[in-house]
Amino acid sequence: MFFKKKPKQPQNKKLNTKSLQGTLELLPEDQIYFDSVVDTLKEIYESFGFVPIDTPAIEREEILTAKVGEETSAEIYKIKKGDKNLGLRFDLTVPLARYVSDHFNDLVFPFRRYQIAKVYRGERPQRGRFREFYQCDIDIIGEEELSIANEAEVVNVMYTVLKKLNVGPFVIKISNRNILAGFIESIGLADKSSKIMASIDKIEKIGRDAVAEILQKEKIEKEKINKILNFISAGNSNAEILDNLKKEKIDNENFKTGVEDLQKLIAEIEKNDIPNDNYKIDLKIVRGLDYYNGTVFETFLVEDPKLGSIYSGGRYSDLVGKYSDQKLPGIGVSIGLSRLFVVMREKGIFQSTEKTKTKVAIVPLTSDLSASYKLAKSLRNKKINTEIVLEDFNMKKKLNYVNKKKIKFAVIIGEDEITTGQYAIKNMETGDQQKMPAEKIAEFIQN
Amino acid sequence: MFFKKKPKQPQNKKLNTKSLQGTLELLPEDQIYFDSVVDTLKEIYESFGFVPIDTPAIEREEILTAKVGEETSAEIYKIKKGDKNLGLRFDLTVPLARYVSDHFNDLVFPFRRYQIAKVYRGERPQRGRFREFYQCDIDIIGEEELSIANEAEVVNVMYTVLKKLNVGPFVIKISNRNILAGFIESIGLADKSSKIMASIDKIEKIGRDAVAEILQKEKIEKEKINKILNFISAGNSNAEILDNLKKEKIDNENFKTGVEDLQKLIAEIEKNDIPNDNYKIDLKIVRGLDYYNGTVFETFLVEDPKLGSIYSGGRYSDLVGKYSDQKLPGIGVSIGLSRLFVVMREKGIFQSTEKTKTKVAIVPLTSDLSASYKLAKSLRNKKINTEIVLEDFNMKKKLNYVNKKKIKFAVIIGEDEITTGQYAIKNMETGDQQKMPAEKIAEFIQN
Repeated sequence: MFFKKKPKQPQNKKLNTKSLQGTLELLPEDQIYFDSVVDTLKEIYESFGFVPIDTPAIEREEILTAKVGEETSAEIYKIKKGDKNLGLRFDLTVPLARYVSDHFNDLVFPFRRYQIAKVYRGERPQRGRFREFYQCDIDIIGEEELSIANEAEVVNVMYTVLKKLNVGPFVIKISNRNILAGFIESIGLADKSSKIMASIDKIEKIGRDAVAEILQKEKIEKEKINKILNFISAGNSNAEILDNLKKEKIDNENFKTGVEDLQKLIAEIEKNDIPNDNYKIDLKIVRGLDYYNGTVFETFLVEDPKLGSIYSGGRYSDLVGKYSDQKLPGIGVSIGLSRLFVVMREKGIFQSTEKTKTKVAIVPLTSDLSASYKLAKSLRNKKINTEIVLEDFNMKKKLNYVNKKKIKFAVIIGEDEITTGQYAIKNMETGDQQKMPAEKIAEFIQN
Repeated sequence: MFFKKKPKQPQNKKLNTKSLQGTLELLPEDQIYFDSVVDTLKEIYESFGFVPIDTPAIEREEILTAKVGEETSAEIYKIKKGDKNLGLRFDLTVPLARYVSDHFNDLVFPFRRYQIAKVYRGERPQRGRFREFYQCDIDIIGEEELSIANEAEVVNVMYTVLKKLNVGPFVIKISNRNILAGFIESIGLADKSSKIMASIDKIEKIGRDAVAEILQKEKIEKEKINKILNFISAGNSNAEILDNLKKEKIDNENFKTGVEDLQKLIAEIEKNDIPNDNYKIDLKIVRGLDYYNGTVFETFLVEDPKLGSIYSGGRYSDLVGKYSDQKLPGIGVSIGLSRLFVVMREKGIFQSTEKTKTKVAIVPLTSDLSASYKLAKSLRNKKINTEIVLEDFNMKKKLNYVNKKKIKFAVIIGEDEITTGQYAIKNMETGDQQKMPAEKIAEFIQN
């Protein structure tokens, strides 16, 4: 927390002034850290050639509901204004689809965009679930086609981000939905494919036995259930799993395409020089949404798999189908940043290095502030963030203010200092104090 | 616009995919410029010791309506979710008041914060009026007291921002509402003060005669109307206006406090070394809101006064009164950035210097992309944003892609280049091409 609790009288509140439950509101110190994470993401996304877009948070309701089922639709914050039915976006993919559809003629494909923005979901707020939270999305949208090299590049982005954010050991788990879908078809269960995939999606949470139970209730024979469960768990290393898959005598186009694509992807990832520990084929990864129909990704912290996936996504064959007639396949991944931030902060993994961005506080001891204004201006011109303590506090209270704001250096300017031109600089952390002329101060602080 | 119109077949749209009327949705090139303006604002605000906060866009309706009249209340986008009455914020001051009230014990006062975020107003969309737009606010909140030096510092921030954004000649017009309020009281019109102030607020738009007419309808004697209109227009230079005010024989406390505060403020601004052309006392400035009760600011472009104020604010005696019992006076100013951006862009004042943030495109001519991945990685590590053209286009289409994305340099990597280790770099603007080893490329691009 940015500022220490002050021993103040209890407040007489006239209204509940807490921010809405299920939203994240930070004190300035945490906000500075949060913003630095966002800046890191932007920097990395831009280093890979992604460009920013910023769509409105409000959309027409028909846009929001065109792509989703009833469950998601019920979560939309709806707004009625005049005769218009509006709503708040619940993700950044739907607005991207509308954007790409609308600006199709002005974009160059493959179109690589990032968007970091708040999305809204009217769920009952649970622990760790937000109703307003930041999503950080990247997507690459092709026209008609999109090569698998793009998928490897997305893995490279994920790897670069998580390394830079220093989240500790992590594994990007990779599968291709066509493999499992093809396998399910090959054992005669095509009609139950969606249900089987949805239950496998839960296997990390509920365990193999519970999944088997669900599938039994779907009236799937025990033998086939075992086949499926063995299929998704076979093999250890990427090479071994790929080897097994290639040896399977399954005459199914989906399956074959899936295996081929997965093999290509793994080969490209290897060429991207991503460490072996950080990615792994896992056929249990299916993603909840039917929307994905090729490669899928989920990312887990090795030391906290229960946290669930922190960076997920995959390939979809058509972004804009509900809105217009083009065929635009894409690959995208998303971080739910608000949740990740809170968890990493609690774990002490995201630790503020900066308590404030203000480097210097000028403490004037004279009523004429001219010398302080002048020094502040010259420091700011040298990119040193500088605050002048402008209130007419006594000296002790002024230094106390600097201390509580956790500003490292105080420059004290009294009559003496103005006369001699030698300003006193105090390091608030060590208590060291020394005098120097104004023009030396910037250099001293920068070192 | 970022990308040239392509001669493509007309799209068969299934839904209206335009963004909601009254919102600002930019193509990537404009978005990059918009983001750079936001970055400039953040940098300047932080250089003066302001810290960021980020409040939710959704608030409880009672928080939103506690501080405003019916007119504003009707503009709120309301959301009903379960038994909760919620709404979207219509400004950043109300959320600030709630924030400060809620986190009072964790903040150090004077508290300087900035917030740059979207706000929502359900107005009928007019030309230049947005329903979703960015506000960029700074405020300094004191505990019980707040010295006038803070007001001068806010003027300094405004000056620094507008200079940096290069908006052309501008004047920050300054008044103190207590002066006009005191004058109105002194001629026996205290009961009509609000109405008189509100009509004077419109004088730049509707002219002196129209204001006189409104005041006549309020049954104010012609002589007094003339007195008021002469009072607010008297004097030219700041010194002359202040001189006139000090000579006025008006025995009214409000008036005297107002004149004294204005004089102090002007003296502090002078010491801050703001050029004379950029600030001016103007007693016609009153701001619409009764909320302000001391210094008020409005900022006009010299070459386009009709545009109205682009940067406005003032002092208020109590931020949190509706929410809790503290007395927290403040001074704040705000830019409506979406509108300013659009106008400045149309005028050609905000001109993109960067068409893209991507500095290099790597164009691989071999199916094995290893060499491209390796070069991209080393360039990115040197902070050079690099995109690899991953699609399996022919060479002409690949270069065309680089061209349309307005990326300045293309590095072409074919079999020959890999064998010799000499990569071809093409400057896409000049057409110049030269060969060099991989390790020289970063340096070449940076120069």
